[in-house]
Amino acid sequence: MIKKWITKTNESLGSFLIFRLFKENVISPKDQKEHKVIILDTYNWVNIIPLTENNEVVMVKQFRHGTKEVTLEIPGGACDLTDENPKHSATRELEEETGFVSSEVVELGWVHPNPAFQTNKCFMFLAKNCKLEKQQNLDIGEDIEVVKIPISEIPDLIRNKTITHSLVIAAFHFLNLNS
Amino acid sequence: MIKKWITKTNESLGSFLIFRLFKENVISPKDQKEHKVIILDTYNWVNIIPLTENNEVVMVKQFRHGTKEVTLEIPGGACDLTDENPKHSATRELEEETGFVSSEVVELGWVHPNPAFQTNKCFMFLAKNCKLEKQQNLDIGEDIEVVKIPISEIPDLIRNKTITHSLVIAAFHFLNLNS
Repeated sequence: MIKKWITKTNESLGSFLIFRLFKENVISPKDQKEHKVIILDTYNWVNIIPLTENNEVVMVKQFRHGTKEVTLEIPGGACDLTDENPKHSATRELEEETGFVSSEVVELGWVHPNPAFQTNKCFMFLAKNCKLEKQQNLDIGEDIEVVKIPISEIPDLIRNKTITHSLVIAAFHFLNLNS
Repeated sequence: MIKKWITKTNESLGSFLIFRLFKENVISPKDQKEHKVIILDTYNWVNIIPLTENNEVVMVKQFRHGTKEVTLEIPGGACDLTDENPKHSATRELEEETGFVSSEVVELGWVHPNPAFQTNKCFMFLAKNCKLEKQQNLDIGEDIEVVKIPISEIPDLIRNKTITHSLVIAAFHFLNLNS
């Protein structure tokens, strides 16, 4: 039976644009010894699988600074403080990044991006009957190309490493689980 | 057509036990304007789905400091500098965390945990015919309970949020894609 650890001290290491870091001194319940851990605290994230009436997925191509590559992803981002809930965040990201609007958005599930050191969750949604009804409304610094991909091609695009983002793959896994 | 951004400056913000942070000033190819981004640089990670002859998955329960909860995961960790390759890392993590030994380890694929701000990949493996042949050999601070779960129960455990780690779910997604 695994027990919880006790946090003895928690020291802020600062804010870094999209997250805050903390250093914690934690006590192991097994041997009562003290260990140091680093915690990355950030907003919850969302992503959304936008489906058109023709079973195409509305996807986004963008340059990603972590890997220095252009990726193929579904729309997504962080929950803003002004968003009512994760569904609101996901619907907002869909419309801002692509201009597509959905008639029905349903939650697929959520995951922990990395419970080892990150505090947050990523909520995943399906947007049905998406239609292009708005203009893209990008954040400063965003440069996003919208592409429509038949949903039947998604498994091969994951297999051949065209789609590589773990949270995008988690969303498609939940879509499979729910269908 | 999305173009690559140019990194103008790259400043180290320090090392934080399991990763290093960098602040980069980057130039958008769209408008030539300068933006700041934070990059989290860390080792590649691995995880591994260990299957017994009875189609049970050898899983690990442990307290995770990011979410302050006990999780159910497959074995995994970071690639050590002394590991020959990710397959070696995954096999090592399997044996250290569980004591189980596999007769055949095959790569399932890899993902980017988060290309938006992380540099690294996570390589995922399947370990066939696992048998308990060794003692657990845990790192300092690790406290891990080993449980065997019939593979047929995995989809429900993801659906009901017992398994929540995105990279564990990505591994099971690749297992489905490969089978």
